[in-house]
Parts: sequence; structure tokens; C-alpha cells
Amino acid sequence: MPKTAYAALSKEDAKREFDAVSARYAELKAKNLKLDMSRGKPSKAQLDMTSDLLAVLSEPEQCVSDGLDVRNYGELAGLPAAKKLFAEILGCKPEECFIGGNASLTLMYDLISKAFTHGLKNSDKPWCKLDKVKFLCPAPGYDRHFRITESFGCELITVPMTAEGPDMDMVEELVKDPAVKGIWCVPKYSNPDGVVYSEKTISRFAHLKPAAKDFALMWDNAYCIHEFEGDYVPFPDILSLCREAGNPDMVYEFASTSKITFPGAGVSVMATSEENLAYLLKLIGVQTISYDKVNQLRHVYYLKDMAHTLALMKKHAAIMGPKFRCVLDMLDEEIAPLGIAEWQRPKGGYFVSVNTAKGLAKRTLALCREAGVVMTSAGATFPYGVDPEDRNIRVAPSLPPVEELKAAMEVFCVSLRLAALEQILAK
Amino acid sequence: MPKTAYAALSKEDAKREFDAVSARYAELKAKNLKLDMSRGKPSKAQLDMTSDLLAVLSEPEQCVSDGLDVRNYGELAGLPAAKKLFAEILGCKPEECFIGGNASLTLMYDLISKAFTHGLKNSDKPWCKLDKVKFLCPAPGYDRHFRITESFGCELITVPMTAEGPDMDMVEELVKDPAVKGIWCVPKYSNPDGVVYSEKTISRFAHLKPAAKDFALMWDNAYCIHEFEGDYVPFPDILSLCREAGNPDMVYEFASTSKITFPGAGVSVMATSEENLAYLLKLIGVQTISYDKVNQLRHVYYLKDMAHTLALMKKHAAIMGPKFRCVLDMLDEEIAPLGIAEWQRPKGGYFVSVNTAKGLAKRTLALCREAGVVMTSAGATFPYGVDPEDRNIRVAPSLPPVEELKAAMEVFCVSLRLAALEQILAK
Repeated sequence: MPKTAYAALSKEDAKREFDAVSARYAELKAKNLKLDMSRGKPSKAQLDMTSDLLAVLSEPEQCVSDGLDVRNYGELAGLPAAKKLFAEILGCKPEECFIGGNASLTLMYDLISKAFTHGLKNSDKPWCKLDKVKFLCPAPGYDRHFRITESFGCELITVPMTAEGPDMDMVEELVKDPAVKGIWCVPKYSNPDGVVYSEKTISRFAHLKPAAKDFALMWDNAYCIHEFEGDYVPFPDILSLCREAGNPDMVYEFASTSKITFPGAGVSVMATSEENLAYLLKLIGVQTISYDKVNQLRHVYYLKDMAHTLALMKKHAAIMGPKFRCVLDMLDEEIAPLGIAEWQRPKGGYFVSVNTAKGLAKRTLALCREAGVVMTSAGATFPYGVDPEDRNIRVAPSLPPVEELKAAMEVFCVSLRLAALEQILAK
Repeated sequence: MPKTAYAALSKEDAKREFDAVSARYAELKAKNLKLDMSRGKPSKAQLDMTSDLLAVLSEPEQCVSDGLDVRNYGELAGLPAAKKLFAEILGCKPEECFIGGNASLTLMYDLISKAFTHGLKNSDKPWCKLDKVKFLCPAPGYDRHFRITESFGCELITVPMTAEGPDMDMVEELVKDPAVKGIWCVPKYSNPDGVVYSEKTISRFAHLKPAAKDFALMWDNAYCIHEFEGDYVPFPDILSLCREAGNPDMVYEFASTSKITFPGAGVSVMATSEENLAYLLKLIGVQTISYDKVNQLRHVYYLKDMAHTLALMKKHAAIMGPKFRCVLDMLDEEIAPLGIAEWQRPKGGYFVSVNTAKGLAKRTLALCREAGVVMTSAGATFPYGVDPEDRNIRVAPSLPPVEELKAAMEVFCVSLRLAALEQILAK
């Protein structure tokens, strides 16, 4: 098959290529594959690798930590030892950490929910009493973030992503509107682009001057130690930066062990100013007596400290790295010469973000699905699930073994080519 | 010391008794006790007894249940095996169960929160858009229930408790007001009275005709299998009864393993109509991907089924029973002849509810605290923390060993006598 840019093909060559790619697509479809690349799920190999977690706390005598019996009620903000561990990982202070259950998503949802029902520390009134709440959504971004604020009736405003993070000129302009109450950020290995926010971007965030005094910088540091290529890359502590910039209460940082130990049974953290935390603990104390402290202690025993956790992340990288290389190699080989898509080369995180030529994403994924390969829906990475140019596709290579991934990527590349040729021939 | 009713004492005898009781109080105070009977916390003996839970799931091969890898993301409504276990315990259908984290309180809070921000299935609009939301609070009742609805700005309406449950004539009258959106119930071994709702009361609840079509019967079956005297007492399934009475969507039932395994690391359940659940899952799916399924499976392995769980509850009863008998014996001996208080004789649950003569509760507990014994604050069992007659005291005997409990109860009885004598002498 030709390895020249599709745009340069004559009508006849395009037709010939279409026939060839169609035939290859038919062959792949006949294999009746059933492959799932829809979400950033860790693989069975990763889960097995971390399953010592299950047995690390098995005796009653191990259940006391800092004098607390973790089996009983109490200690709303979480186990001191767990706060210490997360503070070391995030570079913040233990007193700034609130330890949650297995989902940092729940901590984010609950924060937004409480902003609506009770208000944040610096709110004049609960957001549900306002006519309009707007939220900034750097896109492509994480569909579950956008859906939280959509679910509460916020107006979602798309902010384009750049190679350094969200377009900060636009952010700085938009936050002059007092109805703009916050922004969703994944600052390190952003979902899905894999972009690491530059120091400049981070500093501009810390120095933001939003009109809303209860503006919430939702800093989802989901991939804070999740390098799969190369060593751990240190990252600034956003809490200190905001404090130094006179914005101590603006930021809420989130992280979890979902992709360190078990996605379904990990521990999450929210880090924010001690003043914010004091305010929130009064509200959270109505909702629960404490999150699961046995599981918190289980994680402390298993992960130990930052150095030990980074060593574990190297083992994850040994499993994840080859999968990302497989995706990138396939794209380089099958797609790059054709000029029908571009993509990032992330060194951490869980995704490869592919931007096709305009108008190809939906059709490509429909073809994939028809051939038994399920991927994140087109549009999912944009507010309201609508990608205005129908270009962005989030590839999630973590779950399938490399062999299956290779088969899935073959389907993907052939589907993308077919979609591009259909478009060319329809002109 | 005299064992005659204080009301019958002459002024002189009362003075003499006051001096004697004061002297005894001073002796107790000098012991510098530090005893906590403030909450219904299980004791260390109970936690140790159930600590096999820690090791019951320790191998990766054990992590698959009904074909699901519990370590990974997914299965929002909870593990099928966990639904089956709770359905057997509650007498409802597995499809009616949603399995949560360690706190049923969180499931209750989240339901009320979603009623405010999104509305329940049959709501015309979210409750936050209404001018006034009223909630019925049978009292004495559970402070954390009342606090949830208070936190959302509801007007709390006290409904007196009777020996058969809440005053149903009053409930039936109050629910004619469309602003009345729900009621808090602990139907078996109510907190703190230990009352088991009668069949008649339960039937009247099922047949309730509230003006609000999104009225929420909050059925916190916290002590569903928590007998400490005698055998398990079967209890009707409120979901079936409501369904049969044409009120299928009115009830939300809650339970947890907090007092079966670990308070700080158990599993909770919300049971409601399949239609309610379908509606709620759409909202909960924005908040989380699933609760901790490893811990759900751990509980399934440990508790096995209803019969096995009831056998475990007998072991709890062997620890709890003597503590309740100690409290009741002390009250019978020290207080009964004096006519200054009444109390229930519960056969399950976690509390003994003492009603003093009017105006003695606060003073009694202040004296207790001064002598090193902390109990649930006076008033806590009433909406807004205000007991209009200052009578109700919740005794929580579960945490201290019997010897400490005896010492604490001695302080309590002497404090109550002193408070009564102060009142008599001040007249």
C-alpha cells in the first residue's frame, strides 16, 4: 500500500487505495475481535503485580496507627500516616491532606456538590442560589470532569489545550467574569494529551486573579508519579505556589492510588489550604464519620514512602511502556506518512491523544466498533461530548496485553485510513 | 442511703441525702476517671473477634467474583455477591440493593444531597429550588440523621416516639403538607430508645399518603440483626410492603456492617425500588465509578450468608449482653426506687435511653463530665440539639469493658441523684 500523503493522491489512486484498505478492513472484521480500549484501566498484570497489598495487613495487632485503632470509628480527615505519605508524594503538608475512599472522582464531585448546596469557604452564597455558574474546561480533557459540572447545570466553556497546558491568555480573560467559578486541570500528563503543564503555565495559574473570590482551581494530579518512560519528573507543589501568590484558598488538588495499587479499592486524597480544610471538615463531618481507615493503613504498609512508591511505579512502567511504544510504532508506520492525523508522544499518564484530519473521529470509531474494537467515544474529550471539529480520539492502551493491543491498533489504523479515503472520495 | 422516692423526702431528709451523695460524688471525682460512653462504638473485643476479616481475601486468584475482577474499575451498583448477601439480610431483592463504602451515613447524606441538587425520581424540581423543605424527626432519635437535614436547611419537625414507634397519627397528619419531604426512621431497636416498630406502625408507614410525591421514607435499619438478648427477631421487608401499598418509590432502606465487622472499614447498602435505583445510578455514575469492591468481596467471603452472619451476631451478643445488663442492673438498683428517671429495656441495638425527671439531663451530664465520664450531650437526640424538657440521656455501653462501664455507671447514677437533689433543694 502507498505510503504517500492521501491528500496528494489522484482520484484514481485514492479509489485503488480505498479498495485495498476496504479489503483489509473486511479481513479484520471477519476475525470477530472483541477488544476494549475504552477506558484507562490498568491491566491484569499490573493488578497481580500489586496484589501483595491484599495480605499486608492481616493481624489485629497491625491495626493500630499513631495510637488509633483503624478498625473503629473516627479520624474524619484520615489516618495521619496516610496524610504523611500523600504529602510526600504531592510535595504539600500533611495538614493540607484529606484522605478519602477509593475514588478521587468522588472527592471532586462532593466538593462541587457542597459548593452548590453550602458554598465554599469564600462563597457569598451556595452556588445553587446563583443564576448562572460557568466552568472552564480545557479540551481535549477528561469526560468525567466535564460531566460533574454539567450534571450540576454549569455552563461549560471550552479552553483550547496547547503544548504548555491550557491557553492561559484565554483563561486569564475568562476569569474576569464573576460567574466563572472554576477550571478543571490535569497538570501532569494531561488526560488525554499527555501534556505536562509548563512552569510558566503553572505560575500563571497560581497568580490568577479571578473575579469570583470562591473560584476553584480543580487540580487533578491523577498522574503525579505515573511516568512510563524515563525517571520520575519532579513537579511543583501548587499549594505553595498559590499561597505565595496570595491565592491560598483557590486550589484543590486531587490524587489517588487507583493506578498505583487497585483502581477499585485504592485510597484518594484532596489537598487544600488548612483554612479550606477546616471549613470543609465541618461539612464532611455531616456526611461521614471517616473513610475506610483500614484500607488507608493497608496502603501505608504497602507503599511505605515516596521512594518505595516510585520503585513500584517503575514496575508499572515496565508493563505500560511497551504498550505505548506499540501504539506509537503502529501510528508511525501506518498513519504518519499519510498526513491524516497527528498525535502526542507522552512519557507518562494513560493515553495517547490522536487528532485526525477534520471530521474523521466519529466515523473512524464507528468502523472500529463494527470490527469489534471499542474505544472512548468520539467527542468524549470535549464539553457536552461534542468535539466541534470531530478530530480527537483518546487511545487507552493500558488494559489489553500487547498482542491484543497490536490487533486493536491494526483495526484502528485501517479504520482511520478507510474513514479518510471515504471523505476524499466523497468530495 | 435511702431507697425511697426523692419526691417523698422531707426537706431535711433531702438535705441529708444531698450531703451523702455529694460526698460520694467527691470520692468518685477524686478517682480522676477518663471514660468515654459518648458514641455507639463497638469494643476492642468485638473488633478482635471479627479480625479474621483482614486475612480472608489475600490472594490475587480470590479477586474474581461472578467473572468480575474486583480490583479493577466498574460495577457501579456493587458486587452481585454483596447484593445477594444484603438482600438476604434485609429480606429484599438483590436488584434493589446498591452497595456503598464503609458508611451508610454517606449513602443517606448523598441521597438527601442529590434530592437538593437534582431531585429524586418523582420530584418536580430539585429541593434547592423550593422555598421550604420540612423533614420529620421522630425524637428521641439519631443526632446524625437530624444533622444531615439541618445542614441542608430543612425545617425539622419533632414527632414524639411511642412504645410502637413514631406517633403515626401525627405523622399521617403532617405529611398532608406538601413541604414535608421525608422522615427519619430507625425501625428496629431505634436509636436511642431501642423500640422495635410494631407491625401496625410499619403498615401505616407503608400506606402513608404524603402530599409530596417525592416523599422519602428514610428507613435506617442500622440494627437489623443486632439482638444482644435472645434470638434474631424477623422483621418485615419495608420495600415489599410499600410496593404492595402502591408506594413503591417512597422508601430508601439503609444498613451496614459497621457493627457486624469494622465500623471504620465495613460495607453499606441502600435498598430501594428498581425504578428509583435506575434513576439514582445515573446520578451516582457521575460521582464515582464504583465503591470499594475488594472490601465488598472480603465481606462476602467472611460473612458468607444470613445464617453465618447471625452466628457471628451471637458472638457480638455475648460481649454486648453483659454490658447492657450492667447498665440496667445499676439503674434498677441505684435509681429505680428514687422515682427520678425511667428507661427502656431493649433487646438489641446499641443504646439505653434514660428519661430523667424534667430538667435534669444537662446538669447530670455536666456532673458526669466533671467527674471524667463523657456521654452523648444532652439534647443530642432531639432536632437542633434541643430537648424541650431536658430529660433524655443516651447511654452507650458498648465501648468500655464491663469493669470500666460499672465505674462510669456509678458516676452516672450519683450525678443523676445529685442533679435531682439540687433541683429539689432549690425549690
